Amino acid sequence: MTNFDASLKAEVLVEALPYIRRFWGQVVVVKYGGNALAAAGAGGAAGAGAGAQGADDGLQSFCTDIVLMRSVGMRPLVVHGGGPQIGELMTRLGKVPEFVDGLRVTDSDTLDIARMVLVGKVNRDIVAAINRHGPLAVGVSGEDAGVIAARAKDPKLGFVGDVSAVRPELLERLMAEDLIPVVATIGSDDKGQSYNINADTAAGAIAAALGAAKLVYLTDVDGIRTDRGDPSTRRSTLRDSELADMIASGVIDGGMIPKARSAMQAVAGGVGSVHILDGSAPHALLLEIFTREGIGTMVVNS
Amino acid sequence: MTNFDASLKAEVLVEALPYIRRFWGQVVVVKYGGNALAAAGAGGAAGAGAGAQGADDGLQSFCTDIVLMRSVGMRPLVVHGGGPQIGELMTRLGKVPEFVDGLRVTDSDTLDIARMVLVGKVNRDIVAAINRHGPLAVGVSGEDAGVIAARAKDPKLGFVGDVSAVRPELLERLMAEDLIPVVATIGSDDKGQSYNINADTAAGAIAAALGAAKLVYLTDVDGIRTDRGDPSTRRSTLRDSELADMIASGVIDGGMIPKARSAMQAVAGGVGSVHILDGSAPHALLLEIFTREGIGTMVVNS
Amino acid sequence: MTNFDASLKAEVLVEALPYIRRFWGQVVVVKYGGNALAAAGAGGAAGAGAGAQGADDGLQSFCTDIVLMRSVGMRPLVVHGGGPQIGELMTRLGKVPEFVDGLRVTDSDTLDIARMVLVGKVNRDIVAAINRHGPLAVGVSGEDAGVIAARAKDPKLGFVGDVSAVRPELLERLMAEDLIPVVATIGSDDKGQSYNINADTAAGAIAAALGAAKLVYLTDVDGIRTDRGDPSTRRSTLRDSELADMIASGVIDGGMIPKARSAMQAVAGGVGSVHILDGSAPHALLLEIFTREGIGTMVVNS
Amino acid sequence: MTNFDASLKAEVLVEALPYIRRFWGQVVVVKYGGNALAAAGAGGAAGAGAGAQGADDGLQSFCTDIVLMRSVGMRPLVVHGGGPQIGELMTRLGKVPEFVDGLRVTDSDTLDIARMVLVGKVNRDIVAAINRHGPLAVGVSGEDAGVIAARAKDPKLGFVGDVSAVRPELLERLMAEDLIPVVATIGSDDKGQSYNINADTAAGAIAAALGAAKLVYLTDVDGIRTDRGDPSTRRSTLRDSELADMIASGVIDGGMIPKARSAMQAVAGGVGSVHILDGSAPHALLLEIFTREGIGTMVVNS
Amino acid sequence: MTNFDASLKAEVLVEALPYIRRFWGQVVVVKYGGNALAAAGAGGAAGAGAGAQGADDGLQSFCTDIVLMRSVGMRPLVVHGGGPQIGELMTRLGKVPEFVDGLRVTDSDTLDIARMVLVGKVNRDIVAAINRHGPLAVGVSGEDAGVIAARAKDPKLGFVGDVSAVRPELLERLMAEDLIPVVATIGSDDKGQSYNINADTAAGAIAAALGAAKLVYLTDVDGIRTDRGDPSTRRSTLRDSELADMIASGVIDGGMIPKARSAMQAVAGGVGSVHILDGSAPHALLLEIFTREGIGTMVVNS
Amino acid sequence: MTNFDASLKAEVLVEALPYIRRFWGQVVVVKYGGNALAAAGAGGAAGAGAGAQGADDGLQSFCTDIVLMRSVGMRPLVVHGGGPQIGELMTRLGKVPEFVDGLRVTDSDTLDIARMVLVGKVNRDIVAAINRHGPLAVGVSGEDAGVIAARAKDPKLGFVGDVSAVRPELLERLMAEDLIPVVATIGSDDKGQSYNINADTAAGAIAAALGAAKLVYLTDVDGIRTDRGDPSTRRSTLRDSELADMIASGVIDGGMIPKARSAMQAVAGGVGSVHILDGSAPHALLLEIFTREGIGTMVVNS
Repeated sequence: MTNFDASLKAEVLVEALPYIRRFWGQVVVVKYGGNALAAAGAGGAAGAGAGAQGADDGLQSFCTDIVLMRSVGMRPLVVHGGGPQIGELMTRLGKVPEFVDGLRVTDSDTLDIARMVLVGKVNRDIVAAINRHGPLAVGVSGEDAGVIAARAKDPKLGFVGDVSAVRPELLERLMAEDLIPVVATIGSDDKGQSYNINADTAAGAIAAALGAAKLVYLTDVDGIRTDRGDPSTRRSTLRDSELADMIASGVIDGGMIPKARSAMQAVAGGVGSVHILDGSAPHALLLEIFTREGIGTMVVNS
Repeated sequence: MTNFDASLKAEVLVEALPYIRRFWGQVVVVKYGGNALAAAGAGGAAGAGAGAQGADDGLQSFCTDIVLMRSVGMRPLVVHGGGPQIGELMTRLGKVPEFVDGLRVTDSDTLDIARMVLVGKVNRDIVAAINRHGPLAVGVSGEDAGVIAARAKDPKLGFVGDVSAVRPELLERLMAEDLIPVVATIGSDDKGQSYNINADTAAGAIAAALGAAKLVYLTDVDGIRTDRGDPSTRRSTLRDSELADMIASGVIDGGMIPKARSAMQAVAGGVGSVHILDGSAPHALLLEIFTREGIGTMVVNS
Repeated sequence: MTNFDASLKAEVLVEALPYIRRFWGQVVVVKYGGNALAAAGAGGAAGAGAGAQGADDGLQSFCTDIVLMRSVGMRPLVVHGGGPQIGELMTRLGKVPEFVDGLRVTDSDTLDIARMVLVGKVNRDIVAAINRHGPLAVGVSGEDAGVIAARAKDPKLGFVGDVSAVRPELLERLMAEDLIPVVATIGSDDKGQSYNINADTAAGAIAAALGAAKLVYLTDVDGIRTDRGDPSTRRSTLRDSELADMIASGVIDGGMIPKARSAMQAVAGGVGSVHILDGSAPHALLLEIFTREGIGTMVVNS
Repeated sequence: MTNFDASLKAEVLVEALPYIRRFWGQVVVVKYGGNALAAAGAGGAAGAGAGAQGADDGLQSFCTDIVLMRSVGMRPLVVHGGGPQIGELMTRLGKVPEFVDGLRVTDSDTLDIARMVLVGKVNRDIVAAINRHGPLAVGVSGEDAGVIAARAKDPKLGFVGDVSAVRPELLERLMAEDLIPVVATIGSDDKGQSYNINADTAAGAIAAALGAAKLVYLTDVDGIRTDRGDPSTRRSTLRDSELADMIASGVIDGGMIPKARSAMQAVAGGVGSVHILDGSAPHALLLEIFTREGIGTMVVNS
Repeated sequence: MTNFDASLKAEVLVEALPYIRRFWGQVVVVKYGGNALAAAGAGGAAGAGAGAQGADDGLQSFCTDIVLMRSVGMRPLVVHGGGPQIGELMTRLGKVPEFVDGLRVTDSDTLDIARMVLVGKVNRDIVAAINRHGPLAVGVSGEDAGVIAARAKDPKLGFVGDVSAVRPELLERLMAEDLIPVVATIGSDDKGQSYNINADTAAGAIAAALGAAKLVYLTDVDGIRTDRGDPSTRRSTLRDSELADMIASGVIDGGMIPKARSAMQAVAGGVGSVHILDGSAPHALLLEIFTREGIGTMVVNS
Repeated sequence: MTNFDASLKAEVLVEALPYIRRFWGQVVVVKYGGNALAAAGAGGAAGAGAGAQGADDGLQSFCTDIVLMRSVGMRPLVVHGGGPQIGELMTRLGKVPEFVDGLRVTDSDTLDIARMVLVGKVNRDIVAAINRHGPLAVGVSGEDAGVIAARAKDPKLGFVGDVSAVRPELLERLMAEDLIPVVATIGSDDKGQSYNINADTAAGAIAAALGAAKLVYLTDVDGIRTDRGDPSTRRSTLRDSELADMIASGVIDGGMIPKARSAMQAVAGGVGSVHILDGSAPHALLLEIFTREGIGTMVVNS
């Protein structure tokens, strides 16, 4: 090690170690998108083959970060979606989407397909990728032990659900055992009926129910910008009131709106901070959590 | 209540209550077959629709028994298979089975399908049916937290696995929380590769690893008979050495052989007793466990 | 087992098991009368001989029920009287009862006799009968560890006492060890003076102090009837306010009044329900507790 | 306080305090004889009246010592006999002792009487006297929770028993709660039959089962003398082998023999030391335990 | 032991034992003065030699009492000063005291000297003397784990401090391990600056922070007298309001004033009682604590 | 953060985090030399002033590392010497060293001086410097609770001691409370006599007694070289057998010999590894512990 190297390494360590102390034992909920997974090529339902061989660098870098976070005493929990993968299996099965008032309907068969893909495919691929580091991850469906209590969003849409409550005990118990829960966002009502739930929303509700220190959305943008086209306008910290203003004024739009709303709800519900990062940046999670500057946008309570 | 009724009820209670004491806190592993479920009509993968509505009386009677066993302090754990359901989805997807030396091969795509059906469909249907009684069941894949460590049975067969070890901690933890694990028998090796495992065998290995008091196979026969065609030859109790003799002499054959072998291994591995019952008899589990006479065949150590 | 038998047994089990869950860990105080014991022939103080040989079917059926209740996780506690047995020893000793204002006086010698019979005879016979099932019962006098704090009811009556307080710790401790306390209702004041206490009243006070789920009076009637002469008018459930009305209107009279009053006080003091049963019906306790219908009268809070 | 007083008090304290440390948490079994109690005038069964008023200075001094021992962290346990009191009630009831081969027979009625007197009278008087200091004492019969398992000594003698085993759990539990068990030495077999047991022997068996630090016999002699008629020959310490020699050579005889034998058995069974004291000396227990010199004879393992 | 001796010893024991019960587990803070130690000849900093050989009877008698108090379950804690010993080392080093407005100034070098003497000499001598009884004592400086938070009393006086807060956790932890903390009264502020603190005041603050049952000042007077010159006017008990009156009226003056004020503050802060004794009386601590009469003055809340 | 920065930081984090996991909860004993402290200018006994103001960058960098190690879950413990500081106070006091057979003698006065300097000065300065980060450090002398049991090395040398045993309980307890013990190496025998102990040796004995994962010697050389004059011959890892060879062949000599011997003993006694570093390199501890390459020499078991 040259003196230059030594000095630089020492500096990174002196910067990072206090965060480790601060977040020791704290829950960090990480939303990992189906897009990221699909991009990672681990995707095609009933396509590319189960297990480790299909997982590529992006998923592996993500899993390394999750395992390292756990290794320094944090309690990470992964929530995932799987839209592209559901679509793919529906196509293979020749299912044609049905619409009511322009909205896609989840009938019983579609729900079965969504559940198989989310619980039996996407969830499994993430669990397998983490478990290459050891027997650490446990796949959970929101139906297990009633983790996600749900109700129909709108009868016309079929089995699309809203979160009515989160029972966090099973997740807390698994984390207390130093395990990493990987949650597929299927919920159920007390009659045993299942519903497909938006993963961004579910991640926020879970983070609030767990009193998480952080909720991280791994997306395909590098944070929230005041001018979407200009990377230099990325805000590294935002109060939730500013976020509300940015939605109101139209600065935030499109797919970022559900994330922004979930972020505001999570912060209001007691989550310490919500982070929006570009999940494709290598080790994005580590850099956001263990450096002063971070690499995305952090939303905090005003 | 007439005096006759009262006297009869009192008699059943006086007979049943001591078993409750004896089995309080004991683990009972119940293997529930894919056939039973298919017969129950809860089956068709991506077919009949997720949730409660497809589950019929057979599954409901089974779940009621499981919940009642738990309610009196036992620790039931369900292991299930799903052969018919896997076949059904393969057919829908136009997959043609491949054979090597006359044995069916599980390639990567087939494994993906099997995993989706077992973990994302059959497992879910059982969890949902139990959870109509409350947030009690938790679906587990053998990959979770490395519960079922597996290795390839034969390279030519692809991803068909043998159990190399069972890590029972996750299951024990869930049962300690008064939850009911429902286990899909997918295993994995330490490189993260998954394998499909025979459910009868896996149930035996899990029961041994947990030091279960009982392992119950719910099948479509009413126990082991010395003359298969004659119901009156059913043995209500058998020593494992007798079972070995019956296999050797050909009295036991066909699909009963793997169950019989697993039963002998389980008993040798420390499981208190192994029971083979007709799962279609209403409340078969309760009657076998809480009455002196039982309704199937119980195998014990010689 | 015939199909008819199996179906019937299954039905009783499905009915009974949920009660076991509900009452697991709950305290049930059972008042067993001296009359019942005398009728059982276990009675004669210094007469029939100590130990098992004098205990007959009634006492044995009672003890079996108590042991079975405990075996399924309830915490039964027996309170007993012993009027007939006290009278018998007084007669043998040639004691003539003394009266003041028409009420029987308990002088020092009478108290000694009562205490010897209750603590040294009746209590012992019940303990011995239970302990034929194993070392489960522990005889307790209300003087032990100050369980029943008492004061004189009326100076003219001598050492007849009222309960001034119950210290439940010793009883709770014994039940926490899975033991069955059998309580003779002698109390004491803080100067060490003992008093004889009415057992019905003491049972109510103990049940309230323990926060018992149930208080059961085993009597020689089958419950409370709106027309004493007509068995068909037995009420299976009564609110305590109705009970008060029945006392006020004279429907309830005689020996039932102290039980009815104690029942109302116990319910007001937080006991879940009070049951009045015919103790001579075989397994009366089991039938009342583990069947929907019951066999006596249950009093609950209005 | 004069300087003389101060210096003397300091000396006693410096001598006594280390014993307190040493015996903190240790079990001390004290056998208190029926004779002592009778001498104390607390005796006459069904005679002098229950409660505190009959207890005189001897019993009170004894109880004060027991309570002080407990107050400095020891765990005292009292075992008592009651021969004179049993005889008295038999006389009142006109019972004539029966003999076989010159030995007194305990028939069923006699056992009932003995049990009433020991459990319902003598035991109660000691409990009451201790409880004048607070709710500390709990009366226990050897039948409770199977504490003293017994068998017939000789069929011809009827219900006179030998100790076959001691189950110490109930006693340990009470002492762990800082309570003082007072034990009447009635035992029972597993059929529920009771037996009357010699109290000296039972005290030794209980002390051994509890791993007691000390077993103290309060008698009417001041210890063991090499010349019974000469007080100056009292031995303050004896090895158990010397005691055996003294029995063999006839130096010890009469009523001291059972105590001496029990002492030897207790020491062989792991009791730290056995003490034989004159129970009529005021505060004999304190002086024996907290002073270097002691006032009786201490028997220790050779 | 003669009867006279026996009776006297019994009397002392009956008097002392209840105090042991009462103070079991209670904290007793004992202030041991530098004068006492100097008088004991254990003093000269860098003079008489470290270790046991210099400690004389006074220190040994004191340590015996401390160890005996601990041996009967109290939790003693020693606080000490060291004025004479500091002065001695300053003289040896040729330091001349500096004064501002007539008050002695503690500059940086003086603080270093005071700290070396208190922490490295006086504290060590007391620890060593106690540890001749076993590895019981632990020297603590008020700087350790921030036990005594301090601030400058007056900038002109340099590093003379007032107690701003006491963090009792370290002391509690040591006492919970049955160790005896010996505290040198150096405090520190949150910038790491140390201060010398008056030991009488610090002892009071520590006693209050620990919720001590007693605070004992071992001094060179036998308590508080209404007429200083007349030993017969010593008050054995005083309310704190009387103490205030005695200061106001000038009955108390000189070096007794800081002790009196600290006593009042300690009592107001929740300490059970404050005792002022002549530390040179042999076993003064034992006599004050374990006898009814005591030998000094006890101050209690009005 | 530039991409270059991000990538570099990520790399350091991915390298460092696994060490944190591995050493979580592990004890690391760090020997900090009196020379280092003297060089840091915090030194002059009774000279430069107590507290924070005299501590310079070297001591502060050291303390920061210690606090960071603790902040990520390690249990650091500091052992220090103080030769130069002792010499300085002896000079101020005009003490002339005494010699026997050419070896320096520690008479009683010299021991007093050494103890004052080590316990009351050097120890205090390190505690104060650490406590600028919070109330974390606790000064301990080896005499406290008998931590270092010692005996005379050689009667002619006076109070110079060898370690005869280490009682680690006090240190373990402090570390269990998340406190940082700072140990001055004064030992004592069971008569209460103190001895001055070589700090390198004591550090090794303490590390072995605590089952430390690491023992680090912070020295003024950068490790062990095969050619002392050539920095490029530094060995980054050495087996203890190689170290023995290097002593035997004279490659290691001078002041490094005691450290090398202590290192071998510590490794033989179960310490995971011993590290010899240049304490003057900024953040030497962090770089040695959290990077693959390290910056000194690590000695491990062969």
